[in-house]
Amino acid sequence: MSDAAYTAMWENLNLDISAHDGLLEVLGKFYGDIYLSQQNRLKGMEYLDFVLSEVHGLRVKELQDAKAAGKKVIGTFCVFVPEELTLAADAVHVGLCSGADAGTEEAEKLVPRNTCALIKSFIGFKLARLCPYTESCDLIVGETTCDGKKKAYEAFSNHVSMHVMEVPQTKTADAKALFKAEVLRHKEALKALTGTEITLENLQKSITIVNEKRKALQRLSRLRAADPAPISGRDALLINQVSFYDDPVRFTQSINTLCDQIEERIEKKEGVVPAGTKRLLVSGCPMAVPNWKLPYVMESSNAVIVGEESCIGSRNVRDLVDETPDTLDGLIDALVDRYMKIDCACFTPNNERMSNVETMAKELNADGVIHYALSFCQPYAHEAIKLNNVLSAKGIPMLSIETDYSMEDVEQLKTRVEAFVEMLD
Amino acid sequence: MSDAAYTAMWENLNLDISAHDGLLEVLGKFYGDIYLSQQNRLKGMEYLDFVLSEVHGLRVKELQDAKAAGKKVIGTFCVFVPEELTLAADAVHVGLCSGADAGTEEAEKLVPRNTCALIKSFIGFKLARLCPYTESCDLIVGETTCDGKKKAYEAFSNHVSMHVMEVPQTKTADAKALFKAEVLRHKEALKALTGTEITLENLQKSITIVNEKRKALQRLSRLRAADPAPISGRDALLINQVSFYDDPVRFTQSINTLCDQIEERIEKKEGVVPAGTKRLLVSGCPMAVPNWKLPYVMESSNAVIVGEESCIGSRNVRDLVDETPDTLDGLIDALVDRYMKIDCACFTPNNERMSNVETMAKELNADGVIHYALSFCQPYAHEAIKLNNVLSAKGIPMLSIETDYSMEDVEQLKTRVEAFVEMLD
Ligand code: SF4
Ligand code: SF4
Ligand code: SF4
Ligand code: SF4
Repeated sequence: MSDAAYTAMWENLNLDISAHDGLLEVLGKFYGDIYLSQQNRLKGMEYLDFVLSEVHGLRVKELQDAKAAGKKVIGTFCVFVPEELTLAADAVHVGLCSGADAGTEEAEKLVPRNTCALIKSFIGFKLARLCPYTESCDLIVGETTCDGKKKAYEAFSNHVSMHVMEVPQTKTADAKALFKAEVLRHKEALKALTGTEITLENLQKSITIVNEKRKALQRLSRLRAADPAPISGRDALLINQVSFYDDPVRFTQSINTLCDQIEERIEKKEGVVPAGTKRLLVSGCPMAVPNWKLPYVMESSNAVIVGEESCIGSRNVRDLVDETPDTLDGLIDALVDRYMKIDCACFTPNNERMSNVETMAKELNADGVIHYALSFCQPYAHEAIKLNNVLSAKGIPMLSIETDYSMEDVEQLKTRVEAFVEMLD
Repeated sequence: MSDAAYTAMWENLNLDISAHDGLLEVLGKFYGDIYLSQQNRLKGMEYLDFVLSEVHGLRVKELQDAKAAGKKVIGTFCVFVPEELTLAADAVHVGLCSGADAGTEEAEKLVPRNTCALIKSFIGFKLARLCPYTESCDLIVGETTCDGKKKAYEAFSNHVSMHVMEVPQTKTADAKALFKAEVLRHKEALKALTGTEITLENLQKSITIVNEKRKALQRLSRLRAADPAPISGRDALLINQVSFYDDPVRFTQSINTLCDQIEERIEKKEGVVPAGTKRLLVSGCPMAVPNWKLPYVMESSNAVIVGEESCIGSRNVRDLVDETPDTLDGLIDALVDRYMKIDCACFTPNNERMSNVETMAKELNADGVIHYALSFCQPYAHEAIKLNNVLSAKGIPMLSIETDYSMEDVEQLKTRVEAFVEMLD
């Protein structure tokens, strides 16, 4: 599609065209610096480079085409909103990103200053009319996870069409019953929006699609246990980021192709860094597009990232939905079971996350863990303290970082990460 | 009781005696400056002055005596933990205060720095061994309300014996069902601790006791609609604070006596300030003993406080439990209904709070509202923005304040409050 046709599309979506042009330019430069400059990249990453270069173009065009064909677009901010339900209702599921500062001043009129960058970002992008995905959504589905998001949705819902699901705060049987009730309520909301009833058949199909996507990402994750690391952490993060808005079937296929290449590479003992390079697990808050700051800092500090213990990473792909139930209610229960395994810091207690991080660090042969929390994110800041206690008892070094989307602390972060990497034996 | 006997009691409770002496001295001085210096105080406040002067003495002695007689002491940090259940189980219910900075440095090893002063306070008081109430508790009952508290309890439970109740985040029928399940689980925990089964009879009795306490506080609240204001906001706050740890029957009696005096005063058109003094409603986060900073600032700024829209105030006393059900399950439902009416900012949405504030402002003839949020309290910071929009649409002026327990900003607060009061017509 021509530049002019894209501009027309963005105008139709009511974007602020000149601000949006500016955003794309910054994003392109940023991507060039952080991604295209990498050595020994995998051939299969070309697909991801293409997707990203067309992130506000081709994929948005696909959404418009889908909408023209009568499909609805559902936006989300959290891995608690089941993609399986969206797909079963024959709608398009998009994870809205919120990985850059935009419209912060306007956002701070709707939410307090002491709010994490991710929340300010999604509000700012909306108010500044910069995100073609947000503007394409027929419904945005929120969830009661952290205080910041659940309260921000109240203000946000004056600007977009929203449905909020209650996610409980513990994992008792009664809490699971509440989540099941919320899944059923969401199913009805989807039916009301799309006109499509969710049935055993379409839900079975969508569960398989999403399971296959998760399996491909699990395969990628397992391959990263190899030394030398066959893929950079930046590229792996990008793949996880793109998994939230690309077409799921096409995406799964391309990731499996990439994994084939990675296997060849491992066979030949080739990698993106020399064997023996220090290996880091990054753990904590989600890193949404284009929040590549910390991975870039880490991989410019004589280290390579071998895993992301995050919602844009393992927390989204670790568990599959059981495909065997042969009743709709059975499948819904399987869905609820799977989602209630998510080890988000919003739960209390959330001890399973502690052991999951430890297991990941071991399986991926990480030398250390860098915990990443967005400033003012209370759930993850609390767990940073807890995780540090657990890991140090097991002899796994951990560095705790709190930051936001600004570039001001890059040098300071680099100093801290380099010192940490040097200290790893 | 002699000083030496008290010291022996505090030693038995494993307090840090010299730090505790220091605390009592500061508290005494602070109380003298803020309370005893007031003009035209009500005679009935002598009871409160006495209770407060003996806050770490006589009342703690009563707890020890109760414990010696086989009773258990239950501590709480939130109005969501039903006092009715504690009393029905023949135990003593104490609201732990957390209104002063103590042991902050130690507390910041357990919880993040970006945590509200109230949470840091209860952790700091425990770690610094300063609170005879915390040390007297056989069980502390937490709740999943804000992120800060629910995550802090994880660390705190390594230092005290805890039970955590899940409070849902919405008020749907399914959310209420979850809370009912949690009330029943708590009932079993109390039985396990005290050996007392909660029955229709003892629950009926305890509901009446707590309802009577709430009715006395409601009566006090209503009387404050008079001009001139018959009681200072500081004194009314103190009464609400003391309601959390005094013996409920004795307390109710003394508040009703005080209300009799207030009625006489109103009859004579007497007050603590001249008629026409600007009247303020304070709204927001709870103010725990000895957090009297903002009320002091407000009442030193040519204004009088006529109501506290807070958990140490109206949020704790507005609703009564229906006493009519004649089955245990019916009473439990009545209890659940009453507690699920609480308009805490942790719920989403929480629109009823908006109208409750408006109603209170009108009924108490307030000229303006001062919203008070503890720094880093996200739920109330969000609602400050929302409330400001709602009130300004109704022509009710509001000033939004964020602060903590330090005295550093007193002058700055005074300047802001004075400017606000001056602006009220
Ligand atoms: S960290 Fe928690 S709240 Fe955030 S996206 Fe993940 S599951 Fe949702
Ligand atoms: S980063 Fe933390 S505060 Fe921000 S939206 Fe996620 S869980 Fe909430
Ligand atoms: S403000 Fe909310 S969390 Fe705090 S004591 Fe009140 S009800 Fe509990
Ligand atoms: S003041 Fe706010 S952050 Fe602090 S405990 Fe209460 S609700 Fe939580």
